[in-house]
Amino acid sequence: MTDEASRAGPWTATVLTLFPEMLPGMLGHSLAGKALAEGRWALEAVDIRAFARDRHGTVDDSPYGGGAGMVMRPDVVSDAIAAHHDPAGGRRLIYPSPRGRVFTQAMARDWADRPGVTLVCGRYEGLDQRVIDAWVEKAAMEEVSLGDFVLSGGEPAAVVMLDAAVRLLPGVMGTADSLNEESFERGLLEYPLYTRPPVWDGRGVPEVLISGHHGRVAAWRRAQAEAITKARRPDLWARYEKEQT
Amino acid sequence: MTDEASRAGPWTATVLTLFPEMLPGMLGHSLAGKALAEGRWALEAVDIRAFARDRHGTVDDSPYGGGAGMVMRPDVVSDAIAAHHDPAGGRRLIYPSPRGRVFTQAMARDWADRPGVTLVCGRYEGLDQRVIDAWVEKAAMEEVSLGDFVLSGGEPAAVVMLDAAVRLLPGVMGTADSLNEESFERGLLEYPLYTRPPVWDGRGVPEVLISGHHGRVAAWRRAQAEAITKARRPDLWARYEKEQT
Repeated sequence: MTDEASRAGPWTATVLTLFPEMLPGMLGHSLAGKALAEGRWALEAVDIRAFARDRHGTVDDSPYGGGAGMVMRPDVVSDAIAAHHDPAGGRRLIYPSPRGRVFTQAMARDWADRPGVTLVCGRYEGLDQRVIDAWVEKAAMEEVSLGDFVLSGGEPAAVVMLDAAVRLLPGVMGTADSLNEESFERGLLEYPLYTRPPVWDGRGVPEVLISGHHGRVAAWRRAQAEAITKARRPDLWARYEKEQT
Repeated sequence: MTDEASRAGPWTATVLTLFPEMLPGMLGHSLAGKALAEGRWALEAVDIRAFARDRHGTVDDSPYGGGAGMVMRPDVVSDAIAAHHDPAGGRRLIYPSPRGRVFTQAMARDWADRPGVTLVCGRYEGLDQRVIDAWVEKAAMEEVSLGDFVLSGGEPAAVVMLDAAVRLLPGVMGTADSLNEESFERGLLEYPLYTRPPVWDGRGVPEVLISGHHGRVAAWRRAQAEAITKARRPDLWARYEKEQT
């Protein structure tokens, strides 16, 4: 973090939602929660309903052209974004949506390296297309998908994406699980891990791991990671092979 | 649900975790939370630490072969699984892990169609390989990945997977967002949605959607969904094309 960024306050996640009571949720526990309590990052949950234009708090309406479900109104959502996202502030503006680019570790790292991130949570019927178009133009809003499945709303996806980003912030995790992360950043799945007891359920530990020979351990782990990646994820394996050459 | 299944009680998610206080988390709100309160499904959070074998509650230890982070002990984790998962009960036994098969809507539907699901949450350094091997043999445990990123633990992944499954249970969502789901099950990304006001920010609504002509609306939506899928997700598009022929 630059000096400017630290003077401006901690890394901040702003989540626009119809269910502000869902947050911080799991992000309030364990290491992310401890870091939140310590002020290493901040979470702002914004109630989109506060931007409704009528006294009933209407935020959605039926889709033009018919069909089941409701669509979130562009005027209400846009006002909420405008009030809480500064397009010049250096943060990404994200709309979790199954139509988006698939979320990756590289995105988590990119968000963590900025002053924060703004997430707009829709119900999964989704936002009116015009508010998406408008904010793509105004602030390069990105649609980001957690995967090929349907959730009850954007909030569960937002929490997972934030979990991935927050653990990369300085001082949140320490070096506690750097191991796996290196593994992932190398583009391979993780090699098998073993701990005590040395024999359990009639199963031992691969001898190389108790050899005390660091070079052999490293070579074994690399070979295992490669074999597992090749067997389980031909897509990752192809990318990895390309990067090795 | 069969009569046998309803007599045996509601669909139940059992989550084995070191952080039982993280649950139900977001699953306690909105439609999933309402359905939980109404008894349409049940959630059992099991504290893995209760299965520790010493008075310090030790659940993890350093990895054999060295490296950062901790690995969860096979004996402790296995005892927790054995106490809460019946291999003959018809449920899937799932270990959320970045090494697994990628989670999909089809998996969510499969879980929803069974009496429940059991999820074993590790920290992301992960479980000792032997407890994975043992439960793959005993109960066909599956490693399932939410995507190519690193989380602080299995819990955020478990909550998202459960959200996707729970909303498919009878009586949880009603027909409220069946629209999008059909779209996903057809293997295409969603077409653009519009609602009131008819003009916002100088942007109108595609004329076809206010034509009142159901056939033209359906054809437009299909063409839009195809175009977006083709542009954004060549992988889904290739599969879709194959299935059409």
